[in-house]
Amino acid sequence: MNLETHEKWMGLALRLASRGKYSVSPNPMVGACIVKGDRLISSGYHREFGGPHAERIALERAGRRARGATLYVTLEPCSSWQKTPPCASLILERGIKEVVIGSLDPNPLNHRKGIAYLKKNQIRVVWGILESKVREQNQGFFTLIAQGRPFVTLKMAVTLDGKIATHEGKSRWISSAPSRNFVHQLRTQQDAVLVGKNTFYLDDPRITVPARARCLKNGRPWKIVLVSDEKIPHKPRIFQDSRMVFFACPRSKMKSILKKMETVPGAFNLLPVEDKNGELDIRDLLGKLGGLGIARLLVEGGGELAWSLIKSGCVDHAVWILAPKIFGGRDAKTSVEGRGVASPDQAYGFIVEKTSKSGQDFIFQGKIEKKDKKE
Amino acid sequence: MNLETHEKWMGLALRLASRGKYSVSPNPMVGACIVKGDRLISSGYHREFGGPHAERIALERAGRRARGATLYVTLEPCSSWQKTPPCASLILERGIKEVVIGSLDPNPLNHRKGIAYLKKNQIRVVWGILESKVREQNQGFFTLIAQGRPFVTLKMAVTLDGKIATHEGKSRWISSAPSRNFVHQLRTQQDAVLVGKNTFYLDDPRITVPARARCLKNGRPWKIVLVSDEKIPHKPRIFQDSRMVFFACPRSKMKSILKKMETVPGAFNLLPVEDKNGELDIRDLLGKLGGLGIARLLVEGGGELAWSLIKSGCVDHAVWILAPKIFGGRDAKTSVEGRGVASPDQAYGFIVEKTSKSGQDFIFQGKIEKKDKKE
Repeated sequence: MNLETHEKWMGLALRLASRGKYSVSPNPMVGACIVKGDRLISSGYHREFGGPHAERIALERAGRRARGATLYVTLEPCSSWQKTPPCASLILERGIKEVVIGSLDPNPLNHRKGIAYLKKNQIRVVWGILESKVREQNQGFFTLIAQGRPFVTLKMAVTLDGKIATHEGKSRWISSAPSRNFVHQLRTQQDAVLVGKNTFYLDDPRITVPARARCLKNGRPWKIVLVSDEKIPHKPRIFQDSRMVFFACPRSKMKSILKKMETVPGAFNLLPVEDKNGELDIRDLLGKLGGLGIARLLVEGGGELAWSLIKSGCVDHAVWILAPKIFGGRDAKTSVEGRGVASPDQAYGFIVEKTSKSGQDFIFQGKIEKKDKKE
Repeated sequence: MNLETHEKWMGLALRLASRGKYSVSPNPMVGACIVKGDRLISSGYHREFGGPHAERIALERAGRRARGATLYVTLEPCSSWQKTPPCASLILERGIKEVVIGSLDPNPLNHRKGIAYLKKNQIRVVWGILESKVREQNQGFFTLIAQGRPFVTLKMAVTLDGKIATHEGKSRWISSAPSRNFVHQLRTQQDAVLVGKNTFYLDDPRITVPARARCLKNGRPWKIVLVSDEKIPHKPRIFQDSRMVFFACPRSKMKSILKKMETVPGAFNLLPVEDKNGELDIRDLLGKLGGLGIARLLVEGGGELAWSLIKSGCVDHAVWILAPKIFGGRDAKTSVEGRGVASPDQAYGFIVEKTSKSGQDFIFQGKIEKKDKKE
């Protein structure tokens, strides 16, 4: 069959895959369909973490009609027993004649093994159809597998003069109601939301999500908070719902932090992170979050954390919400702080991929340049 | 005649007026045309400061054909001897039957007097045709007459994280080449450019204009620099051309500043400005600049000066050039500093009137809210 036909059916498999959006993480979304003579026989998608794979569902549904058909599947079929029996052997057993794949499985356990198994058994295999779309659909999974850390989205709400709070530390609200709604929707697509220690102390955020919205982690994205031994709000609003809370703290300050934590009025997990002179090792933090199965992480400030992430090259997507207003204030916090670059030619480029309007605000989405350059 | 006809001829007068753009300041641009039976008889515009008025030129050109015709003029004809004989009496003398006016003259010397004179002499008078366009064309003149200060444009070139320099004070360059060209063009429309003391010290700007461009002040907009007694660059680049330089300084610090100035390698004017504890009285500064005949002033930073201007309600137009890059830096300067507002609901709104792209940069133009609210 030609490329156009392949892309048509892979497009269907992709749309099917997206139905698993809120329930498969940190597994990838996968969709599959079985086609014979350009007619759809059956389809399936990976519905939830631990559940049957997409191609298995489609094959079961097709029954004997699968014989001699083509299987479209967004991700390479597995070839080893994991949480479920391997799909590759079932494909062979059911008499599929050709398998068309979106992307190879980045997981070393499976990478190219499914394809090798199928080929060895005289099944025709094509791959790389709409591959970039498959990867985009599963940014979290691919980043987690390839780099052992979550896909990081950095979101900032700033005034036109670059402030994320007034000089008194007040930030409610910078952006308009439609933009705050946009952020709530953004949160639904995350496994967890991370905020820095100043934000935790000054903003005392709740990190709410829309009440009845579907979202990852069964509608309850985790909350990760950086804490230091100086600054812990009296009765943090972060405990106002019962979602999982992690306090990430520098290992060297564990003792004094735990002492401060004695009066914290809620349940939390403590996440010790390597540090140098109290400054967190961002890669160790992200690695540990990846280890907890967090594939998509939203970082919502403040400026010190943003700088650490940018400097470490760990920002995969950036969302800047620009409110057309001016706070002023030489002591007001800005979106990216830390030490900063010394000279303009060392600036980190922001590759704008999308601009949009949200109420009065302007939203810039894109990538922040990654580089090895030191401060 | 009907409104449509009036607007057609007034539109022509407006376009003619704009030819005086670079040579009449601080006088207004004025255009005129004489029309009979919807046919153009003659036209004229105010060509240069001190030169003959637009309506006089048009009347002289029309000669006897002006009799019984309609005169269109963008601004109310003068009725008293100033630099030239009054136009109102010439209009009467030449037998004009109807005068159509864009805007009344805001100058108390002339306001409504030209109209009164014409009416008293049985000439039909219509006014308010395309009035807002006439006022827009002469923003500088109208602001100078009505408020005794220049029309102030505040321009900032900022990174996406709100910085106007790195933590080392370096700012060359934040914006792209097309944006810097845009700024050069903006300067050509000004009588003077003002920079704050930190900008003067850290940036040591030249405030160049395009070499062969037409601009106000005969192509040589003045340079106004705030200075304090601490910070004066060794060999300021501001003297690299022979344009007029004014050093504005707090009156209470005149003595120590003059002492520092002894070694300054160029000619300058000293402009003492009232101050409270060394902080300049912005209204006094602007009033003095108005007194010097500066009708259009471009302010190019830094953040302390921007805050003073915004707080005083003296920013008439704002131009924010946003470069998609990130400097970071908790000590890097931002576009608006000073004390700033205490709470987000006190923010100064930026009413965006125009957005455009310039190279990679985004340009926001608009107005900054004016209010009496105190910090």
